[in-house]
Amino acid sequence: MHGPEESAPERVNAFSDGVFAIVITIMVLELKKPEEPTFGALFHLWPTWISYAVSYLFIAIVWVNHHYLLKYAKGASFRLIWGNFAHLFSVSLIPILTVWIAESKLAAVPVALYAGVFMLVNVTYLVLAWECLGVRRPTAAAVRTRKLLHIRSFFTISLFFLAMVVSFWFPYLGLGLICCCLGLYLRPEIPGKPGY
Amino acid sequence: MHGPEESAPERVNAFSDGVFAIVITIMVLELKKPEEPTFGALFHLWPTWISYAVSYLFIAIVWVNHHYLLKYAKGASFRLIWGNFAHLFSVSLIPILTVWIAESKLAAVPVALYAGVFMLVNVTYLVLAWECLGVRRPTAAAVRTRKLLHIRSFFTISLFFLAMVVSFWFPYLGLGLICCCLGLYLRPEIPGKPGY
Amino acid sequence: MHGPEESAPERVNAFSDGVFAIVITIMVLELKKPEEPTFGALFHLWPTWISYAVSYLFIAIVWVNHHYLLKYAKGASFRLIWGNFAHLFSVSLIPILTVWIAESKLAAVPVALYAGVFMLVNVTYLVLAWECLGVRRPTAAAVRTRKLLHIRSFFTISLFFLAMVVSFWFPYLGLGLICCCLGLYLRPEIPGKPGY
Amino acid sequence: MHGPEESAPERVNAFSDGVFAIVITIMVLELKKPEEPTFGALFHLWPTWISYAVSYLFIAIVWVNHHYLLKYAKGASFRLIWGNFAHLFSVSLIPILTVWIAESKLAAVPVALYAGVFMLVNVTYLVLAWECLGVRRPTAAAVRTRKLLHIRSFFTISLFFLAMVVSFWFPYLGLGLICCCLGLYLRPEIPGKPGY
Repeated sequence: MHGPEESAPERVNAFSDGVFAIVITIMVLELKKPEEPTFGALFHLWPTWISYAVSYLFIAIVWVNHHYLLKYAKGASFRLIWGNFAHLFSVSLIPILTVWIAESKLAAVPVALYAGVFMLVNVTYLVLAWECLGVRRPTAAAVRTRKLLHIRSFFTISLFFLAMVVSFWFPYLGLGLICCCLGLYLRPEIPGKPGY
Repeated sequence: MHGPEESAPERVNAFSDGVFAIVITIMVLELKKPEEPTFGALFHLWPTWISYAVSYLFIAIVWVNHHYLLKYAKGASFRLIWGNFAHLFSVSLIPILTVWIAESKLAAVPVALYAGVFMLVNVTYLVLAWECLGVRRPTAAAVRTRKLLHIRSFFTISLFFLAMVVSFWFPYLGLGLICCCLGLYLRPEIPGKPGY
Repeated sequence: MHGPEESAPERVNAFSDGVFAIVITIMVLELKKPEEPTFGALFHLWPTWISYAVSYLFIAIVWVNHHYLLKYAKGASFRLIWGNFAHLFSVSLIPILTVWIAESKLAAVPVALYAGVFMLVNVTYLVLAWECLGVRRPTAAAVRTRKLLHIRSFFTISLFFLAMVVSFWFPYLGLGLICCCLGLYLRPEIPGKPGY
Repeated sequence: MHGPEESAPERVNAFSDGVFAIVITIMVLELKKPEEPTFGALFHLWPTWISYAVSYLFIAIVWVNHHYLLKYAKGASFRLIWGNFAHLFSVSLIPILTVWIAESKLAAVPVALYAGVFMLVNVTYLVLAWECLGVRRPTAAAVRTRKLLHIRSFFTISLFFLAMVVSFWFPYLGLGLICCCLGLYLRPEIPGKPGY
């Protein structure tokens, strides 16, 4: 299908899917079963359960966007591979920060770092987007997609940065801002483009 | 094979298989080795071993049905991807509930929640089935498959709900009902259809 | 490539590879780092290191044979899928038994059960072989391959059973017999057949 | 695509990617969340975070080289499969040694063994390279690629050996040598060859 000289992105996809699958299920290992077989004991562990559900949703959103972007990749270039590794690295930090947030009951520092990790996820996504959309498809449609993607990215990166700063004083507000930013990525395609 | 505009379900399959493989083997990490190298110490841990075997079987049944359904998927639509994430989320809760059941020796609340999780697995499976069978293949055979699948699904969802309610008073009976429901899914295809 | 009616074995392969990859690396989590940064502390943990290396080799042998067999599979039939699940289930028990053997320093019961697990791996492999080689390729070469495979399988299953019985009195001898049996599977193809 | 007689390297790739994905994310499980929600508590854990980042980078470099090499593989021969298992085995030892280095704060023995593991990774890589580049592509370009690869490999293997010896007296210098060697592999292709 591909000669050895030009590299296919299939193995990059397979490796990324492996990492995403592990990261999204690693949190199950952090779930503790209640001490006693009662609803009371279960409700007592609510921060663990909520944090699992929320982080599952967030990682799913990141996967959907990764999946959307890598459809445009035609080859596994040096920059694509290393941009992807940087992206997966920042994704791999989500589980431990979620656990930290849950256990500290939304303290300032963990929430601020959580916003920082999502800023990193977004920055590395932008690097991937430059590589996937930038070089290989200089059509008019791609140019417009790229432009809208850049506007959205710079907007959400600024918002994540704001969330990070705000979290030091108002962690609940910071977490609300993070949720809003991620809502913007629920559909990977840009408004005004059919996408999927 | 697929242009970037229309999304192939291959990565959805690869990601789902990764999650299924992790969920089905995560329980091995919960297996404890006996304290002493004797059969007595091994038999003492029977709830752990039985629960591992039973949950392995149940997750295998869910995988077989998932595999059967996604063969019909022609593209990775928005609803397919999110229905799949919801399905995998409910599957990922099976291991921890099985451990809870085993350690509480079939107490009422864990068994009722176990039935609730399988109800969730079934509901999200129905959503996936609507997307996979409903939109893309409006042939006469597909209509009949879909109709039989719906009948079976509504029947088993009701049965799981009954099992959940019953478990609060008679957990052993509730677990028996769960096993019966899963038995209906042992073969994914609908009776009267060659299937596989 | 394949219509929805006839199922391709690709997803069975992908799922199996996921399970094998997890089972073979789960043992890394059991590896303990030495208490002190000296060779003495490292040598003190020799049963852990040896058992990791040996089980890695054994699971690699099982993977090579699985890989060899599933090349012959033309479709994912009901029996193939469930034979495969049974095979993977027995493989998933190898890590915990290896840890048990290492910690009990080759006590009788763990070694006997270890032999029993490998007997199970072999029996389920034979079921898979019946499905892969038996139905779909009734050529003269396949008949001969099948016959030689059956002879080898029945021979090694008997040897594993013998190892299990012997281990109750002489665990070291039992482990030696297990190693011999696995040596017979180092190359998956049958003598007198080019194979790979 | 491939007949059963000649084996395709796809499953070797899929299995390897699974192992790499698990090895690179297993270290997340070793990450401990800080005791208190403060930056001070986070900084206190710096050896854990640094070691995670560094080992992530090193395993990524090994994956990139593995990916580069296996593009040349035309079939899954006996030597390719077992060379690959040996390569993955040495890769799977990286996480535990990194943890050991971090906890012992760069003591002599862990750093020397770390250099030894990378020497092993490099030796098994060379075996894989012999199989992938040596047999199947006797073109002039391949001969030159092979020759340059051998020169680089023997050079870096000697350097890793030197790092191992040096570490017994000067562990910091040994670690510096390891970093230099890995820098040489940052781009898998050989200088003077377009590669990727």
